[in-house]
Amino acid sequence: MDNITLMDRLVHIRNNKRFEAFIIFVIIASAIMVGVKTYQLSPWLINTFLVLDWAITIIFLLEIMVRFLATPNRWDFFKDAWNLFDTLIVTISLIPLDNAEMALVARLIRVFRVLRMISIIPELRILMNSFFTALPRLGYVMALMFIIFYIYAAFGSLFFEKVNPELWSDIAISLLTLFRIMTFEGWTDILYETMDVYPWSWAYFISFIFLTTFAFLNMVIGIMVSVLEEEHINETELNDRVVTLKDLHGEIKDLHSEISELKSLILENKK
Amino acid sequence: MDNITLMDRLVHIRNNKRFEAFIIFVIIASAIMVGVKTYQLSPWLINTFLVLDWAITIIFLLEIMVRFLATPNRWDFFKDAWNLFDTLIVTISLIPLDNAEMALVARLIRVFRVLRMISIIPELRILMNSFFTALPRLGYVMALMFIIFYIYAAFGSLFFEKVNPELWSDIAISLLTLFRIMTFEGWTDILYETMDVYPWSWAYFISFIFLTTFAFLNMVIGIMVSVLEEEHINETELNDRVVTLKDLHGEIKDLHSEISELKSLILENKK
Amino acid sequence: MDNITLMDRLVHIRNNKRFEAFIIFVIIASAIMVGVKTYQLSPWLINTFLVLDWAITIIFLLEIMVRFLATPNRWDFFKDAWNLFDTLIVTISLIPLDNAEMALVARLIRVFRVLRMISIIPELRILMNSFFTALPRLGYVMALMFIIFYIYAAFGSLFFEKVNPELWSDIAISLLTLFRIMTFEGWTDILYETMDVYPWSWAYFISFIFLTTFAFLNMVIGIMVSVLEEEHINETELNDRVVTLKDLHGEIKDLHSEISELKSLILENKK
Amino acid sequence: MDNITLMDRLVHIRNNKRFEAFIIFVIIASAIMVGVKTYQLSPWLINTFLVLDWAITIIFLLEIMVRFLATPNRWDFFKDAWNLFDTLIVTISLIPLDNAEMALVARLIRVFRVLRMISIIPELRILMNSFFTALPRLGYVMALMFIIFYIYAAFGSLFFEKVNPELWSDIAISLLTLFRIMTFEGWTDILYETMDVYPWSWAYFISFIFLTTFAFLNMVIGIMVSVLEEEHINETELNDRVVTLKDLHGEIKDLHSEISELKSLILENKK
Repeated sequence: MDNITLMDRLVHIRNNKRFEAFIIFVIIASAIMVGVKTYQLSPWLINTFLVLDWAITIIFLLEIMVRFLATPNRWDFFKDAWNLFDTLIVTISLIPLDNAEMALVARLIRVFRVLRMISIIPELRILMNSFFTALPRLGYVMALMFIIFYIYAAFGSLFFEKVNPELWSDIAISLLTLFRIMTFEGWTDILYETMDVYPWSWAYFISFIFLTTFAFLNMVIGIMVSVLEEEHINETELNDRVVTLKDLHGEIKDLHSEISELKSLILENKK
Repeated sequence: MDNITLMDRLVHIRNNKRFEAFIIFVIIASAIMVGVKTYQLSPWLINTFLVLDWAITIIFLLEIMVRFLATPNRWDFFKDAWNLFDTLIVTISLIPLDNAEMALVARLIRVFRVLRMISIIPELRILMNSFFTALPRLGYVMALMFIIFYIYAAFGSLFFEKVNPELWSDIAISLLTLFRIMTFEGWTDILYETMDVYPWSWAYFISFIFLTTFAFLNMVIGIMVSVLEEEHINETELNDRVVTLKDLHGEIKDLHSEISELKSLILENKK
Repeated sequence: MDNITLMDRLVHIRNNKRFEAFIIFVIIASAIMVGVKTYQLSPWLINTFLVLDWAITIIFLLEIMVRFLATPNRWDFFKDAWNLFDTLIVTISLIPLDNAEMALVARLIRVFRVLRMISIIPELRILMNSFFTALPRLGYVMALMFIIFYIYAAFGSLFFEKVNPELWSDIAISLLTLFRIMTFEGWTDILYETMDVYPWSWAYFISFIFLTTFAFLNMVIGIMVSVLEEEHINETELNDRVVTLKDLHGEIKDLHSEISELKSLILENKK
Repeated sequence: MDNITLMDRLVHIRNNKRFEAFIIFVIIASAIMVGVKTYQLSPWLINTFLVLDWAITIIFLLEIMVRFLATPNRWDFFKDAWNLFDTLIVTISLIPLDNAEMALVARLIRVFRVLRMISIIPELRILMNSFFTALPRLGYVMALMFIIFYIYAAFGSLFFEKVNPELWSDIAISLLTLFRIMTFEGWTDILYETMDVYPWSWAYFISFIFLTTFAFLNMVIGIMVSVLEEEHINETELNDRVVTLKDLHGEIKDLHSEISELKSLILENKK
């Protein structure tokens, strides 16, 4: 009996708007601290931040415990990847890291805490989810682009190594050079340099730019648009158009029943 | 009675095409003056502009008074944000600003007057409104992008500060550097410089470019497309397709009435 | 009678695939000549080109005369803007231009002849038309962008003139500088230079980039997409879906006639 | 009888998931080898790679033979362009290329083998096919862009040759310069240089950028979006909405049969 009351209280706390606002405030505070720490700080501020850091860690710990205990079937809590992420971030924060090496890890954890902003605001979570939904389709486009990059990089390091070994000496460097060309950053320097040795190499560069930048990047846009529209259609169109078709369906059903009524009347007449 | 006649006259003036054209002409003249003032001017021109400036301010004042008085329920006038903006711009123009410091403010006000172009031309107002409609959704994407920027900036000033303090010394400078990288402006210089110290830092830069430029920028495009399409669907599709479904609905209704007529006939027959 | 036969022959020539192919070949030849002339040429080639040029002009003249005379109602010929353009280009080619000054105009006309490629290939003409259809909507976006550019340019030449007069001395130069910033070409040099004097000027540049590049350019994309989709919907959707609705309409009509047949049967029964 | 059993076995092998996984593994191994070869290698590794290369060639040969023999109507095998491509790559690999000149061709073939990745993974093949589907429409846009490029290049080499012969000396170089301007790479250097001689040349550059980058590139995006949506509509909409219309069609058909049943009943009644 007592246990149920505790559960109810926890659910009440979890759903409380003020509780949520307080947690968002703490996350923002933690994010600002991460930013402020990149400046030169007075020893007094460093000590204050050390205390604040522990306070934030404890608040996060309490918050996750509340949310965990407020879940009816407790192991369902970890089925949500965001909850898992939150728990992981908080647990690692709790491990005492003393030596210099570990201090860096501790700072990295503080930085990742900023990501909790996404897990706590539903609209951002939806955005991230729609991004993850697009990932599998995007993944194949990325694979296709990587194949194109790889082939061009292999050709590049085969032919242009002598032109400029800094840009084309092996496949990894060539891949980076091609990525640079795709962003158009100083690509004409590379082009002119290569054309001095191979006058026809413009075909290599322009075909690469066409294939990657124009064609495939646009394909990425296309996928994005289709994902967003799919979502959009799910929201609006289903409410509008298809419902009207459902109405028609209902109306035609009414016709059926009316006609069968007619039929029974005629059959009665017959008798 | 007299008051009503005045009101009618004001409405007549406000809706007059020539009045609107004259105001647009005055706004354009005021915009051109703003532009011409950036050149070296003869003292004579400066004095002419001073007079013209006051003339424009008075014309704007009269125009807003006409539009305000022509509104039946006068406080509704300020419910339109564009009217509020117009009134603000004109009122501030009226304040006499004499000392040098204030002269700058006066010049700024003259510049903002160009924005009246948007408030007077309905098509531009629609465009701006559709942009403001997209803002809330865009806002969340911006928030997500800012979180990504912030985390990368924190990492950047944590690791790369020693590489180039001018680019990575604190989080504000790192954010600007990352914005620069997102625009691809000289980003490879930063990349090569950082890779000399941290050979694996390309992963930092390329993952950042992927996350911000490719994925999220496209998401912005997606939102824009969906907003514009929504608007588009509202205009055309509702007139076309759904009306046809409504037609079907009407026709099926006719069927119902015809069948009920049949039913009454059969019932009559029965008797 | 004889006249009608001539007309028929001209229509026959105009619609002849070989005639069209020959004209396309001549246009391509004329385009190649334009290109070849940019190289150093032997005197013999220059003379050959002079002859070829006249041959091309005469062929174009004959072609337009055929197309003009083959139009049943002759003044309809000039109602098509492309025909007007073709006629203009050919007529100007016919004017003998002897002195040096005029030789340049003659060369320009030769260059514009390449545009005849668009007027002769229907698919390219459709593309151009769809571009012109988008223009009015694009025009308002351009106007909005110009207003934003103008306001930023006015601010730029007001505040940054002392920082770098080469970039911000007057409104025209400032507009060009802002266009450069929009293309991200060396924009960080301008940013760093300005931030040395005005540390808060990053807000000016970043807000400008956001407003122009991100928001409005995407709006252009949105308009393009909507225009292309409109066209697309006109082509496919009307053939597919709405036809199905029409089918339903027809089927429901059939129901009506069947029910009225039933009615007459019942009425007959009654008697 | 024996022959049919062999056929069945081959089909069994071809459809075996492990066989497919093994081939993908071999293709990846071959791709990695292509990459590793761009580094400095020990003689031992070079020899190992020589053996591995032959092994891969033989595995590919066997795989294609399996797939060829498992096709019921064998000449259908070559109707698929991807099969033709695979066969070509493998056959050329088999030709012994000994002299230095030919060694390069051999290396190129090894690089092209990476493309087999696309032919073996169905999702990538679909992506490539959707790209090829877009090509004809894209082709016309490219043609239009080329015409614009050509006209601007002709103007460029006519007027700007004296400004900078390295960039504008003939039409081919001008085309490359214009492509560079379209990518915004150092375009302002060219602009300022040209404006020193022709102060109005900014109109040339800005109109070119507008025409190519903004208008037509967006058109490419539009086409991409429409192709992807078409595909998307084919997949989802046909399953959803039109099926509902089909349902209605079926239901109305039922109404017809019910009414005709009624009719026969009434007719029976009459008798």
